[in-house]
Parts: sequence; C-alpha cells; structure tokens
Amino acid sequence: MSHSNGKALRSVGTRPVRPDGIDKVTGRAVFSADFNLPDALSGAVLRSPFAHARILRMDTSKALALPGVKAVVTAGDLPTISDEQAQINDQPPDFRDLSANILARGKVLYEGHAIAAVAAVDTESAQRALQLIDVEYEVLPHVIDVQQAMEPDAPVLHENMITRGITPAPTRPSNIASRHEQIHGDVELGFSQADITVTEEFTTQPVHQAYIEPHACMARVASDGQTEIWCSSQGQFMVRAYCARLLAMPLSQIRVIPLEIGGGFGGKTTVYLEPLAVMLARKSGRPVKMEMSRADVFRATGPASGSYISMKIGARKDGTLVAAQGILCYQAGAFAGSPVRLGCMTAFAPYDIANVKMIGYDVVVNRAKSAAYRAPGAPMASFAAESLIDMLALRLDMDPIELRIKNAAREGTRTAYGPGFREIGYLETLEAARAHPHYSAPLGKNQGRGVASGFWFNIGGQSSAAITLNEDGTVMVATGNPDIGGSRASMALMAAEVLEIDVNLVRPQIVDTSSIAYSDLTGGSRVTFAVGMAVTQAATQLVAELKQRAAKLWDVPDGQVSWRDGCAIAIVDGSDECLSLAALAAQAGKTGGPVAAHVSLNAQGAGPGFGTHICDVEVDSDTGRVTVLRYTAVQDVGRAVHPSYVEGQLQGGAAQGIGWALNEAYLYDDNGALLNPGFLDYRIPVASDLPMIDTVLVEVPNPRHPFGVRGVGEVPIIPPLGAVANAVSRATAARHVDLPMSPPAVLKTMQRAARRRR
Amino acid sequence: MSHSNGKALRSVGTRPVRPDGIDKVTGRAVFSADFNLPDALSGAVLRSPFAHARILRMDTSKALALPGVKAVVTAGDLPTISDEQAQINDQPPDFRDLSANILARGKVLYEGHAIAAVAAVDTESAQRALQLIDVEYEVLPHVIDVQQAMEPDAPVLHENMITRGITPAPTRPSNIASRHEQIHGDVELGFSQADITVTEEFTTQPVHQAYIEPHACMARVASDGQTEIWCSSQGQFMVRAYCARLLAMPLSQIRVIPLEIGGGFGGKTTVYLEPLAVMLARKSGRPVKMEMSRADVFRATGPASGSYISMKIGARKDGTLVAAQGILCYQAGAFAGSPVRLGCMTAFAPYDIANVKMIGYDVVVNRAKSAAYRAPGAPMASFAAESLIDMLALRLDMDPIELRIKNAAREGTRTAYGPGFREIGYLETLEAARAHPHYSAPLGKNQGRGVASGFWFNIGGQSSAAITLNEDGTVMVATGNPDIGGSRASMALMAAEVLEIDVNLVRPQIVDTSSIAYSDLTGGSRVTFAVGMAVTQAATQLVAELKQRAAKLWDVPDGQVSWRDGCAIAIVDGSDECLSLAALAAQAGKTGGPVAAHVSLNAQGAGPGFGTHICDVEVDSDTGRVTVLRYTAVQDVGRAVHPSYVEGQLQGGAAQGIGWALNEAYLYDDNGALLNPGFLDYRIPVASDLPMIDTVLVEVPNPRHPFGVRGVGEVPIIPPLGAVANAVSRATAARHVDLPMSPPAVLKTMQRAARRRR
Repeated sequence: MSHSNGKALRSVGTRPVRPDGIDKVTGRAVFSADFNLPDALSGAVLRSPFAHARILRMDTSKALALPGVKAVVTAGDLPTISDEQAQINDQPPDFRDLSANILARGKVLYEGHAIAAVAAVDTESAQRALQLIDVEYEVLPHVIDVQQAMEPDAPVLHENMITRGITPAPTRPSNIASRHEQIHGDVELGFSQADITVTEEFTTQPVHQAYIEPHACMARVASDGQTEIWCSSQGQFMVRAYCARLLAMPLSQIRVIPLEIGGGFGGKTTVYLEPLAVMLARKSGRPVKMEMSRADVFRATGPASGSYISMKIGARKDGTLVAAQGILCYQAGAFAGSPVRLGCMTAFAPYDIANVKMIGYDVVVNRAKSAAYRAPGAPMASFAAESLIDMLALRLDMDPIELRIKNAAREGTRTAYGPGFREIGYLETLEAARAHPHYSAPLGKNQGRGVASGFWFNIGGQSSAAITLNEDGTVMVATGNPDIGGSRASMALMAAEVLEIDVNLVRPQIVDTSSIAYSDLTGGSRVTFAVGMAVTQAATQLVAELKQRAAKLWDVPDGQVSWRDGCAIAIVDGSDECLSLAALAAQAGKTGGPVAAHVSLNAQGAGPGFGTHICDVEVDSDTGRVTVLRYTAVQDVGRAVHPSYVEGQLQGGAAQGIGWALNEAYLYDDNGALLNPGFLDYRIPVASDLPMIDTVLVEVPNPRHPFGVRGVGEVPIIPPLGAVANAVSRATAARHVDLPMSPPAVLKTMQRAARRRR
Repeated sequence: MSHSNGKALRSVGTRPVRPDGIDKVTGRAVFSADFNLPDALSGAVLRSPFAHARILRMDTSKALALPGVKAVVTAGDLPTISDEQAQINDQPPDFRDLSANILARGKVLYEGHAIAAVAAVDTESAQRALQLIDVEYEVLPHVIDVQQAMEPDAPVLHENMITRGITPAPTRPSNIASRHEQIHGDVELGFSQADITVTEEFTTQPVHQAYIEPHACMARVASDGQTEIWCSSQGQFMVRAYCARLLAMPLSQIRVIPLEIGGGFGGKTTVYLEPLAVMLARKSGRPVKMEMSRADVFRATGPASGSYISMKIGARKDGTLVAAQGILCYQAGAFAGSPVRLGCMTAFAPYDIANVKMIGYDVVVNRAKSAAYRAPGAPMASFAAESLIDMLALRLDMDPIELRIKNAAREGTRTAYGPGFREIGYLETLEAARAHPHYSAPLGKNQGRGVASGFWFNIGGQSSAAITLNEDGTVMVATGNPDIGGSRASMALMAAEVLEIDVNLVRPQIVDTSSIAYSDLTGGSRVTFAVGMAVTQAATQLVAELKQRAAKLWDVPDGQVSWRDGCAIAIVDGSDECLSLAALAAQAGKTGGPVAAHVSLNAQGAGPGFGTHICDVEVDSDTGRVTVLRYTAVQDVGRAVHPSYVEGQLQGGAAQGIGWALNEAYLYDDNGALLNPGFLDYRIPVASDLPMIDTVLVEVPNPRHPFGVRGVGEVPIIPPLGAVANAVSRATAARHVDLPMSPPAVLKTMQRAARRRR
C-alpha cells in the first residue's frame, strides 16, 4: 500500500498551523507541574549527599511524627523483584536496578540518589520532614571517571557485579557490567591491506538532555488500589508498565493520563517520581504531587553516557576504507545499561568497510544512571569515527566529502551495522552538502570548516491508532503516544491525506492508557513512521467502510463505489452521485452505526536515516573561544510530513550537538558532589551562541512506509560533534579529541600542537 | 450468536463488588461540582422572576463594568438556528426551542427562565453582577395548568404556534403544539361488543426526577476555539452534539469529559448550563464553572409532564377486553415536546385488546420545559389504564391478576403498541405475582391491596465499545456511556463471560468523546442491552484474534485452536498445549502487535419489558394519610447481568413511583412562581416512608441479545402509580383518580364517596 506513488500529495508535505500551537503559546497546555488536585499532598525526596556510601541506619519516626506529614516511604516499601520479574520480554530496563534507583537499598551510589520520600500537607512540612529523617552513612571511596572506574583497584559499586560477555567469566567483581563485540569481516586482514592508518583516543563527557520541563507527577490511589497517574513522559504505557512492575500491580489497576511534555529527548523514557508518588498516595489515602527542582533533575536523572574511545582506521592510498576498529568505554552511571552496543553498531555504519571490529564496555560509576538521549550511544562513537575520517582526508589530501562519497553505503551495502541496506539516502546527503553554497563559501583567518555524517537505524514498534468519524463529518484521530516532535500534526496530515479532506477537519488527540490499545513509547524516531502507519491503515479502513456505507445507501455492490476528495462516488455510467463525509456521517445510524477504524500493529521496516552536516567556526587564538559562524544540516528524511517540524528537528539536534561539542559538562568536587546543577553553570547553547542553522531536506522515500516516512529525530544530533571538532581542528591546525572543546581546552590543545610543530 | 445457550454462565448473573463502589463510598468519584480548574471563573445565571413576560429592554453594561466581572452573555450571543439546523436527523430536540430555553429570546416563559449569564472572579461578584443587569419586563398573563392552557381564551405562549397533526390546520395560534393519534382496530365496533364499560378522568402532576446531584459543569475554550467541557450528563456525546449545534461549532472542536453522575433518570438528557459556560469561557478567555442551586434545578430543569387523561374501557362479561380509548393531554412546559405519544403507545400495550384508539395532545404551559423521566410518558397513562382495569375487576368481581392474565399479551400478540411481540414475559410476571406469598397475605382494617402492570418497549441504538488486552493479560473495557445504573459492572461481567476469565481481571472505563466512537446517550434502558451487545461482540472478536495469535505461535491452522477458561487450547490429538491470556499478551508484539477489538453498532431488537407490582396500603381514616405496608415488584428482566443492580432498579423505580403517587407536586403562587423549590417542601419518599421493597426477577431471555438481556430501568416506575392508587381505592372503597394522593386529597375523595354512598 503506497499513497504516495503516482498520486500528488495534498496534505502530506504541507505546513499547517500546529494543532497544539495555540495551547502552547497561550499557556493552556497542561504540563506536569501544572496539574493539581484538591486535597493533594506535597511529596518530597530525601537524596544522598554522598557519591558512595553504605546506609547503616535510617530512622524516619521523627519525620512521620511531624504535624502535617502523612506518609513516609523507604526502599523497604518497594516489593522485592524476583529474577522472573526483573525484565519484560528480556528487554531493558532491569527492574531490580530501577527499583534500587527509585529508592536506594543498602547503599547510595551517587550524590542525589533517592533514599526516602515523604508526603505532607504542604511543601514546607515535607521539606522539614526530610531534615528529620535520621540517616547514618558509612562513606565509601567513589569513582566518577569511566577510565578510572575500569582500573582493577577502583572502588566497586556493586559487590556482585561480574562482567558479562567475557569467557571465561571473571572471578572478581568489577565496575565493568558487560563487554560487547561487533565484528564484520576480518579486521586483522583489513589492516594488513591498508596503505595508511590513523589511530586516536577520544573522550566525551556526560551531557544532560536539558529538557525545559523538570519531572513532575500526581498520583491518586483509591482504597481498592485503583491508581491514576498524571505525568509527562515519553510514554504513558511505559509509565504504566514500569510502575506496575516496580509496585507489583496488575496493569488494569493503573490509568496513566499523559500531560503535555516539555521536552524529553530520551530522558523521559523511564520513571523517577511516579512510583514514589503512588506509594505515598497509597499510604496517605490522598493524592500526592511531586516535582523535581532543576538541581534534582541534574543530580538524579539520566544524562547521556560519557565515554573513552580508542579508534583506528585504515585505507588504501586512493581513499578506499579497508578496516576500522574501536574500543568504546561508556559510563552507565550507577547502574548497568549504557548504550555502548549502539555506539559499536552505528559508528561506521555509513561506510562500506569490509572489516570492522568494535568492542564496547558498559561501565558503572558513581553518577546518576544514564538515560537515553537522541540516538543513544551514537554521537560519541560517531565523533570518534568522523574525526578519524577527517584526519584521513587531511593525510590523503582529499576533500572530506569526496572521501565519504567514495566509501558511502548505498542500497545493498552491508556495513558493520548488520542488516544490508535497502533504499537509503546517504549518498544524496553528501551530494547535496557538496553542492550547497555553504561548502564552497570562502573562509577567513582562524576559521575552519568541518564536515561529518551520522547514521541512525530508527525503529518501528507496537503502535495503536483510532480514527472516529463524528456525526458532522469531522474526524478524530486518537493515538497513545505523547506528542514530542509534532506527532499531532503529522498524524492529522496523514489521516487527511488518505481521507482526501482538509487537515483542519481532523482533530488529533493524545489519549490515556484506558482509552486506546498499547503503544510503545515515543522514542527511537518511531512515532511518525510506526504510529503514522497505524493511522494511515486506520484511515484506509475508514475509507473502505465509508464506501460500503455509501453502497448500502445506494443499494449497489461495494465495488461500484470509489473515493475522491472526501466523498464516496458511484461508479455508474453517467451517474454523478456522490456522498460527502458529512452526509455519510449523518446517516451512519441507518447504515450500521458509528463509523470508526482502529489499528494496532508492530511496525517493521523503519527506514535508516543519514545526515551530513557542515560547520564553519572561528577560533579566537588568544582565548580558545570557538564561535560557530555557519551551520548547515543535510538529512535524508524519507518524506517530510510537516516540513517545518522536520526542519525544527534538524535545527534542534544540531544545537544540542553543538552544546555537547563545545560547552556541556558536569563538574564535581572531590567528594563526587555535582557543582553545576543548573542552567547558569551547566551551559547549553542559547540563541546568541548559534547562527541560524540552515537545513536541507533530502527525500529518498522509505519503501516500507505508505508515505515514505523515515524517522528524523535522532540523526541530527550525531554529526555535530564530529563536524564542530573537525572545523575546530582545521581552524587551529590541531586535532581536538576531548569534548567539550571549552576555551581553555581548545587553547591547551592549540598550544600543545604549536609546541609539537616547533 | 448466543453465549447463554447450552453453556452455564460463569460471570453473568453473579454479584461482584461494583468497580465504582469504592470510589463512590470514599468520595474519590469526581461529580460535576467536584471538578475544578485553576483560574476558573464562577458563572451565574440571571433568571426570570415572572412566569410570562415580554423583555422590553435589557442593559448589561453596569454588570460588565463591575470589577471582577469578565463576561456577560445574553440571547443575542447565541447563533440563530436555521430551519435546516433545527433538528438532527428529524429527531427531537428542536434546537431553536432549546436555544431559547438556554437564554430567553424576547419573552420569558416561566419563572426561572434564564435570560443572561455572567462570569466573574468569584461567586459573590457574579451574584452582584446579576443584580446590576437592568431588565424591563412587560408582565403577561400566564397559565400553569394543562386543561386551562387548552382553553380557547388561555394566554398564548408562542404567538406562532399552530397545532400540528390536525387537518385542516387551525388558523389561530394556541398552546396545543400537536395532536397525536394511535389507532388499533375499530374502537366504535369494539365498544359495541362490550357488555360493560368503565369511564374515568385522571390528573397527574408534574414531578421532578429529583436526582441528588444538581447540574454543574466546567468549560474551557482556547483562543483557536478548541473547547473542553467537563460535566455529568446522561451522554457525553449528547452534550457535544447539542453544544455544537447550539453554538454552531464543528464537533471536532469540542471534547466532553464525562464526570461521575449523581442520578439522571432522564433529566440529564439535555443541556442547560453547558452552552452558557462555553460562551462565557470563550468571551473571557478563562475556564468557567457553573453550578445550579437546588432551587434552580426545581425552577428551570425539566420535570416529567403533568397530565389530564380521560379514558374508557369495555369488556365482555367474562372479562375479555374488547375496546379501549383515551384522550391524553400532557403539559410539555414552556416548549413543545411532552412524551404524550409514548403515553398513547404504552398504556394498553400489555393487553390483547382488538380495538384501541388513543389521542394525545402536547400542550405548552408557563413551566420549565419538561424532560424525560424513566419511561417518559408511560406512568401517567398506565396509571389511568391500570385504574380502569382495577375498576373493571371490581365491577366483574374478578381477581385483578386473573383479569390481567386473561387478557395478557403473549408471543405473537399485536397490541395497541404497534409491533407484534416476540418472546415476552408479561404472563410470567403475572403468574409470579399471583404465586407470591404477598398476594395471599391477609389484610387488616383500612388496608387495601393494589395490583398494576407496566410496559416499556426499551431501545437499542448506536453504541461503541473497545476492549484492549494489557501486556500482563488484564483487560480494559472502554465505553462512551455514563454509568448510571451499573454499566461498568455489567460491561465487565459480559466481557469476562465471553473471555472466560475472572471479572476482576477486567477493568471497565467510561471515556471521553475523543477516546471512543460515537455512542447514543444513556437512556431508554438501552445501555446494558445495546452497549452490552457491542462489548460482547468486541470480546468475541478478541477471542478470535487471540486464537489466531496462538495459532501463529504454534504454527498450526487457525481452526485448530479453541478457547477455554481464558486460554487458547490446541486442538491436536494428545496435545495439551495451552496459552493463557497473560502468555498471549506478553507475546503480542511478536504476533502482530497489541491485541484489541472495537465494535460500533446500531443495536436492534431490544426486548420489551413488563412488570407487575403488588402494593398494600393502610389509610388513616381520620387524616387520609397513606402508609405503604408492603410492596413487591415483579419484572421480566430478560437476564439479570448483575442481579443486585437489577433489584436496585426495581426498588428505585418503585420508590419514585410511590412518591409520584402519594406526595410529589409543584406548588405555585398566583403569579406562577414556584413555592417549593427544595427537598424540604417538595417531598420525595425517604427511607422511613417506605417498606423494604421486595423484588422478583423473572428471566425470559431476549432472543436478540447474546445473553438474553432486556432493558430493566424504566419498567419499574410505571406500575406504582396504578398499584398504589388501586390499593388506596380498595382500602377506602373510593376511587382515587387525582395524583398525588396527599392526605387532604385522599380524605376529600373518601368523604365524597361516603356522601355518595349515604
């Protein structure tokens, strides 16, 4: 089924006003902290002041005795998670770890680790109650850095952690949770064929997703256990499933009502406060509202992993890549589960290299558990790979885009990623970048131009959509996925396209877990593709049903009705009978009842996405300060359903990647306490830091989606790290391998290179 | 499809704890007045102090100038309704009338008629603003009583009202909105065959539905017109449709979120405050909450029609009924639309009488527009008919149940109602009543026993249901109908029955208008039958889908899987493979995605319902006070899905009917102002007024419903008027024909009869 083939699109590809636009600009949208219930208690969390310590004793009795305090919970209130219950369908997360992250059991593993929660009649009482909780700690040595954590004598976070993926299994516990291997071809043989090799080590720092909206939620529990949770998240069904698993409840007892989400970027794909709010509400018998401060968000919610990467690449003299290898060490935070495997998978995926060997280590350290962040695991690996490609281009004196074109994966190429590619548009992004005026614009003194590419596989997954026809012919589209990147608009556009009606007749809605079938969370750039597929199929079913209804009214066989411009048309010689959507809707009662279509599916065939970015920088040779002068993001987006949103995705991803490259880092004191838990000191790029980011949408349709859609949300954060680093390296004639490239770091690298050149 | 045939039922017919029970007894359920939004304004309505007056001038400027007042609306703010827009699918209501009832246009037609509404920052400011609205009235003569309103010289409410249904059409306007005729056989011929005839005139008073919860709502309108309405009603889709029509909005712009409902009984099948709240919210840009006081409810919301009825019945000496006729005059309130047609249809429907002629008049008077009330139009007509049957039994010296049995409609009988009956259980109710110990219990002095029957046709209608399987095997059942009489429980039971699982694994939910397809309102005793049919079909589809999923997992043909005890079973010799709901749910992703089933239908084949009630009373011969000593309600309920709820329906209907018979009446002063707008002075039966009402559930399954369900909610309010009147008449040896039978009225009738006997 393809709606795009041979037929001009009328809605898909247009830029209507966003259905949620007015709500968001007028303040009507209800974000998680905006939601209130009468009689709600205020919840608060006691967090560890130490990076690593044993909890010797905890006494909550004084807190509980404080007037106004209605409930206190500690780890003892959480059910024990059995082996069987530790995972759902063998997928992460590990619920034992998640439970211990919700409330520390026995040990605190990072500064900010939750150890108790209270609910009281007001915020002040709740805060005072926290101070009355008496905790005796035995402070332990801690480790923050991933390389130090891998040392044999490093303080060990989990006494029973034996590295998985190594044969024979190690006998001693360590901070290395697991080892991964991704092998393609024979890397030894490959390097033996190389005329030239480049080797380098890289480090990147953990960076926060830096969503505007801190975590917050409200929970209410009836005395029969029926539970409601209002929160913003990347998946109401995820919140329901995780809370049910953590609290040993049946799913039917929980209703999660999604509130508007103020950014997630992967950081809201897990739960922090929700289980606490439910436990407190259950104990107190009253609704409980919980909100994180910005400092809590920085201290206790997942950043992207920091990394140490050692990489090597080999090529023939003509630029043909013949081998690549890497060792990737990702810090997972306090519990296992960094996306190092995805780094191994994606770093060299854009290139047709016969021999690749990647080894990844997932390492725990005394920091908050890392969480997904746009294309989890890929940006840091790609930074290393794209830096090597750039170094190779310099060594070969080849144009860096030409070098990439020479080695680009095409349809049929089987790269280190694994599956062979079907129709992909990597080459097209390289060609568009090369042809872009930006690429041939002159550069001035202390200026450099960097290029980098990026790959993300994108996913499909379980998705549900309901389309119902109102009695007046307007149409409701309900889905079970939070709208983070514009899914309301794209769902409405796809439904309007199939129904051949004006998109303004379609009202998209995000509904709660009791109002639609299960849907995987919003993430992996899956929603426009997979939920869009469900919407498209449902709309197609709706048209089929409407044609049957018209046939019934006309008393003709079903086959004699077609659909055009939102109307059923009788296919009879000389007839011009036609029934509009409104006319069919008005007569629905007579023809069998309300007209609706529902589709649940597990979407396959997400189209891989590729992007190529060009970045110009100027480096102040006195201070090391980097100014981004010009930035162009080119991406194969398959089909841009609402191009403004797609451009926004590219711009947003580039902005976040630039921050990752230049500024963002967590600063700790000697005790492992975070020094910069706020946007004043943890510096993300602001408008004045960035030029207008130009975008080029390349459209190579994904053949496995009716409109050719590919995920677009994750690719754009991958190239910026390499593109900026390559630009800075070329501007300074010095290779910059450690992120962030803050002014002092840049200056130091420049000075070291200058010394070396002397 | 029948699930009840030949298979023992495991869930249907049991009495589990109500899914909404805890919510309601602990105060967690959110009724309409419980719902609040931050920043909401308080709305208030200016109501007419006169029963009938012309609005000469209205000045709202002072009100609008009052600090804190944010919006004022009058009839001029309501769109004009065109002829085309006056009705939906030729069904009532008339939206021009409804619009004029929401806010009076030019004239006020009853005391309490809304003429303006304001929204202010608090209740006090809103109330003060009402006082500042300057209205100049020309008071007109008014008419309250239905017979007076039909007089040629009566004050005319609507200058352009020409009686419909009379040929040739009258040339002068009157208060008679329409004339209806229901003819079966030849009534002249019939009466010519009668050996005995009985003729009588009856009057009944308007009675209020007396739901506990007054009307209230909250509305919020975004600057792009997107509108949300929170309210309790008998139909979230009704509220949406009516508001859209009254305010000329597309349905897709309105989302109605149903709150818990504290009783409706037909009285919440229309809108009063909702359009006002929307208009005020739109003008002010802020949410607006509106609540009626109890006095507002009595003054301005629909009671059941009062009536004047003249009726005649003829029989042979052996008791065979041969003819019946009636003239029914129902007052509709200020706008046309009493249920007089239903009175004509139902009064003699239980009886196999060859010749019946019923004429009905729909009459407007200066009272609030009447609204539906359980079996609208039937109780008063049945009161007259059942009184005549009782008088006939006395004249023939026959047992009143024997007389009814002799003439009872059976399968195949075509009565005055119209359609010939299929399987019905009237006879079974009569036989059960006759066999009940109550019927043969001895009576004392001043005591009497009355019997009466009642009929309601019940309806089906458009209904939608969604069943979704959660990942852990628990099940959600979502419907679009407010739960008034226990539909959460009955939907869960029917789903559990089909799925063959414990009902506690099923969670029923009532969802909003954006979360399910269109559903007709909760009324006409349709929900358990029609929505239950949708739920049953959806559950059947779900089982079929699950069998396919199991077949896929086992790699066997679909036909080789059966379903038993909530598990898919492989039909293979010697195999005992089985997959539980939970196992299938956990693997749904692998077998095609989330498992759900949705059904929308227009249910046909609602089974007619019949009931027979027995009432014992004692009448105080000095005061005329009637004490109900014993009461038994027998009813054919088809199949009691949750018998406790069904018994509750019978008891509640009987209690309301007893109030209608004995106590309830509106009292007006000379100016047409209501004197008793509250429960202290408008006296409904309280617990101490009533004996325990015994119930007998007769189950003659409706062959057109998978479980044999018939509507049960309306029948039980029909017999009490006749049963109580017949009991009082027998106790006092005087026929009581005017309701309510208050002590002075009873005493007067007794004294008149005594004088006549002397």
